[in-house]
Amino acid sequence: MREFILLARKGLTKPFSLKDLPGAGRIDLVARCISSAVFISHAIRKDVIFHAVLYGPPEPPKTISFYAKKLRAVSPDERNIASHLNIALRKSDELKKDEILETEPGITISKKSFEQLVEEKLEAGKQVIYMHPAGKDLKKFKLSTDWVALLGDHLGLPKKIEKFLKNCKVERISVGRLEYLASQVITIIHYELDRRGSCFSRG
Amino acid sequence: MREFILLARKGLTKPFSLKDLPGAGRIDLVARCISSAVFISHAIRKDVIFHAVLYGPPEPPKTISFYAKKLRAVSPDERNIASHLNIALRKSDELKKDEILETEPGITISKKSFEQLVEEKLEAGKQVIYMHPAGKDLKKFKLSTDWVALLGDHLGLPKKIEKFLKNCKVERISVGRLEYLASQVITIIHYELDRRGSCFSRG
Repeated sequence: MREFILLARKGLTKPFSLKDLPGAGRIDLVARCISSAVFISHAIRKDVIFHAVLYGPPEPPKTISFYAKKLRAVSPDERNIASHLNIALRKSDELKKDEILETEPGITISKKSFEQLVEEKLEAGKQVIYMHPAGKDLKKFKLSTDWVALLGDHLGLPKKIEKFLKNCKVERISVGRLEYLASQVITIIHYELDRRGSCFSRG
Repeated sequence: MREFILLARKGLTKPFSLKDLPGAGRIDLVARCISSAVFISHAIRKDVIFHAVLYGPPEPPKTISFYAKKLRAVSPDERNIASHLNIALRKSDELKKDEILETEPGITISKKSFEQLVEEKLEAGKQVIYMHPAGKDLKKFKLSTDWVALLGDHLGLPKKIEKFLKNCKVERISVGRLEYLASQVITIIHYELDRRGSCFSRG
């Protein structure tokens, strides 16, 4: 399984206008990441799970999860993906503390925090990595078949959470010296792993 | 210079609604490609030129070009980029046959066809490559510093144009066996070249 957890520091935790995704706490960035994680040309990557953990007002945190295998009627454009985030947020009004609500096929919402999610993954024995430009080179790094990649948004992860990850001994992994958009980092991880697994030898 | 030419077979050649970019002949795809080509985190790739050649109704072809170095007030979300495409289309009503109109800083529109653009680049001595899953492996391919990558949209390039490219001896280059979204192919080309030029050696 290829699993991603994005922390969106300003991502609104209530329904927002589809006319202004950047103004909704950079929901455009969240949608772009989901698109990069889930879609290739004319197909869905069925082995992908994506969690967007929203920390914007009024009721942070809220975690919206996309299970690619079960998704229906989701398309790669930002507005479409944002509309599914909106449906989840709209249905999350009465969400209880430990509840996980499926709002559409393959889409759930809960009140899980970023730390809580990471702890769950570690307890489940998954290999958790934190994508950071100063980390170890992904090209030289061995990934298990069951990994989870953590990503910050345009503001990066808060210091407090970076400390938490250090305490959990989560390794920092990098795709290069350039600071890419989070959605581009996701594309690059997929690409590096696709190429590892492939018998591509043309040319 | 890193230059891209995308042929959008259905991309509308008149202003469209920002509420339905997929319905405008997959302008979402066009916008996503421009975003991937031009942006990294908190910065613009100043060495990028991007041409979107639109072949949808009512007046094909129209070529909208983005010169990254000169862009202002463009942001990476699809809707914002689409709004700049719209401004260009709105101003293209009276466009003459060989005119190139600058509609905003770093954004131009003309009636150039895909073939015309490719011929111009070849005549200027640029290395032109056509991104295709069955091409030679980009990893093993030597690129000059002045290349132009051609991309099809979700429908791929028309047979007629593929024949034209073959006649021009344009090489087919691939980033792997998977068929990625055009925007993902762009991210991967950038990444491969960033890594070639880098002294990245952490980890």
